[in-house]
Amino acid sequence: MNELLLKETYRNATYHFLGHGPRNIKVLLDSFENTDPLTESDIYGEGSIISEFENEIATLLGKEKAVFFPSGTMAQQIALRIWCDDMKIYNIAYHPLAHLEIHEQDGLKKLHHIHPILLGEKHRLFTLDDLKNIEYSLSTVLIELPQREIGGQLPSLDELHKIVDYCKSKNIKVHLDGARLFEILPYYNTSPKEIADLFDSVYVSFYKGIGGIAGAILAGDSSFIEKAKIWKRRHGGDLISLYPYIISAKHNFDLKYNKMSQYYQDAKELAALFNSLQYAHTFPHIPVSNMFHVHFSKSKETVENLLLEATLKFDFGIATRITEINPNNCRYEISIGDEYAKIPKELLNKLFDYLKII
Amino acid sequence: MNELLLKETYRNATYHFLGHGPRNIKVLLDSFENTDPLTESDIYGEGSIISEFENEIATLLGKEKAVFFPSGTMAQQIALRIWCDDMKIYNIAYHPLAHLEIHEQDGLKKLHHIHPILLGEKHRLFTLDDLKNIEYSLSTVLIELPQREIGGQLPSLDELHKIVDYCKSKNIKVHLDGARLFEILPYYNTSPKEIADLFDSVYVSFYKGIGGIAGAILAGDSSFIEKAKIWKRRHGGDLISLYPYIISAKHNFDLKYNKMSQYYQDAKELAALFNSLQYAHTFPHIPVSNMFHVHFSKSKETVENLLLEATLKFDFGIATRITEINPNNCRYEISIGDEYAKIPKELLNKLFDYLKII
Repeated sequence: MNELLLKETYRNATYHFLGHGPRNIKVLLDSFENTDPLTESDIYGEGSIISEFENEIATLLGKEKAVFFPSGTMAQQIALRIWCDDMKIYNIAYHPLAHLEIHEQDGLKKLHHIHPILLGEKHRLFTLDDLKNIEYSLSTVLIELPQREIGGQLPSLDELHKIVDYCKSKNIKVHLDGARLFEILPYYNTSPKEIADLFDSVYVSFYKGIGGIAGAILAGDSSFIEKAKIWKRRHGGDLISLYPYIISAKHNFDLKYNKMSQYYQDAKELAALFNSLQYAHTFPHIPVSNMFHVHFSKSKETVENLLLEATLKFDFGIATRITEINPNNCRYEISIGDEYAKIPKELLNKLFDYLKII
Repeated sequence: MNELLLKETYRNATYHFLGHGPRNIKVLLDSFENTDPLTESDIYGEGSIISEFENEIATLLGKEKAVFFPSGTMAQQIALRIWCDDMKIYNIAYHPLAHLEIHEQDGLKKLHHIHPILLGEKHRLFTLDDLKNIEYSLSTVLIELPQREIGGQLPSLDELHKIVDYCKSKNIKVHLDGARLFEILPYYNTSPKEIADLFDSVYVSFYKGIGGIAGAILAGDSSFIEKAKIWKRRHGGDLISLYPYIISAKHNFDLKYNKMSQYYQDAKELAALFNSLQYAHTFPHIPVSNMFHVHFSKSKETVENLLLEATLKFDFGIATRITEINPNNCRYEISIGDEYAKIPKELLNKLFDYLKII
């Protein structure tokens, strides 16, 4: 009951913690504001609308080629399949909470018969030692930066380099799940290319921090991308027209790429406010991107009631959904976008003063 | 050289034989004219935008449920996979020029390990006898109505019923590739439901005769559709937002569904004009839908030159691409949409008078 109410009151509030605002049709229409209506569609992966954007992102990532996909699910399964076929090894390794492991209905196994080996433990990043302990031959290691399901944690650049160097020494390909690659650049204080250089193949998304409608890019060398285009056709992703996603991806990329530092700073500010509550703490304690998890040492129902009351009292959307950890603990995910900057600081402080005395 | 010129002059001409007009961004924007910009997106297959359209098409087809897919390639592979898994038989049968056989980079084989058996010969429809001659156990027969690659030919309703009855007697599922299902209803003089009733699963497309941007619907019983949704996630087709395709599908469906008789009549008129030329004939001789093939007993180059000259002389786009059959014969596909009705009859007759004296 409160679950639905929480979502509903979040939606109706004036201010919001999460994202870029409602996912409504205006997002699409705004993306087309500056596009000539007579611009011709891409046709089955060809045409300037798609090739120009693919080239732009390939250049940004320092890769030879790139291909636009309707989804990251499709792009990443295909990347892993290509490397497995190339090496004739059908074992790959990733974090136990990788997107492919928990959100894709086992497409990787059911469609590609690839065997994933889980690195380390669910609640933490995997380490070089976890990787060294794997007894199987691996074709590929998939690294997700940041590791979304544990609040968006990141290895140090030093650890990342060590993991990649180890893979190279063992002739293991390294694939980047960069669904949120642009969001981590301020923390690493680096360029997309410098991160992408570490990887044989890179996937980036355009509807998370970037705020487009859907869509993804997979980048790598020419031979890899040629194969990816064939697999895209096989998966049913080579649509006659992908421009609704491409134009919104490009439009929002141009608007939001340079705001990632702001989102990162905002995330650190908001996490500190949550950490000032006796019954809450964040993962990571200090965020390393625009996202983090808030853990509460109270029941899901108590927190839902509390946030519902606060939302109604302050006209302030705090959360849409709370996940139970156990009867005494729960959590939710915060991902900062354009909405957070609209909140008057005074109201924010009032809200947390209220949450403190509960 | 003339190949490119032909496409370019077609585009620039005032009148056109083919389709609904240019595939440009206006097609998308027009689809959204009557949609409130504050309408919320579908989210991963949920929400009223997607469920209302799925329900509408399920009802039209007389099936329990339907699911919207980004592409027919994805929808059809999945339909066949579900039936194969259900029956534990991985042989299916279809026409040698089925879309799955020639346009999908062998996705059915590479992703699903399904073995297709080709029925009959490339240049004609398959028959009940062709099916009876198959020695393998089959899980499914896929029937494409109309058979696009041979000009959009159709079996008689009687032959269709016999094929379906035979399949039922052998416990073989029957799947409809109805990419152009709405286009054949005037010829069969029947309803979508009456055709769909013959089939265990039905795929329809929204960018061919309907003129949307992309997208497809798969319909069947509840248990089949539940499985299809899981496979849609596995394929990477369960996008966070599919509404750009859904809204354009619905918009164009409402505009064009009742025009199929007009397109069919127009196709018959135009085919008769081509058949009046000594060096041309059409397949089918009398069209049974909005589409047909024109065969020329002249070389591809000669026909390209001829049509290029005629296009420039009469400001009249005739063809975008000619396919060589052999050095003395070539062909092209005509698919009638809204463009044909805009052509002044006088100009049409002048064009064919000109083509006659060549």
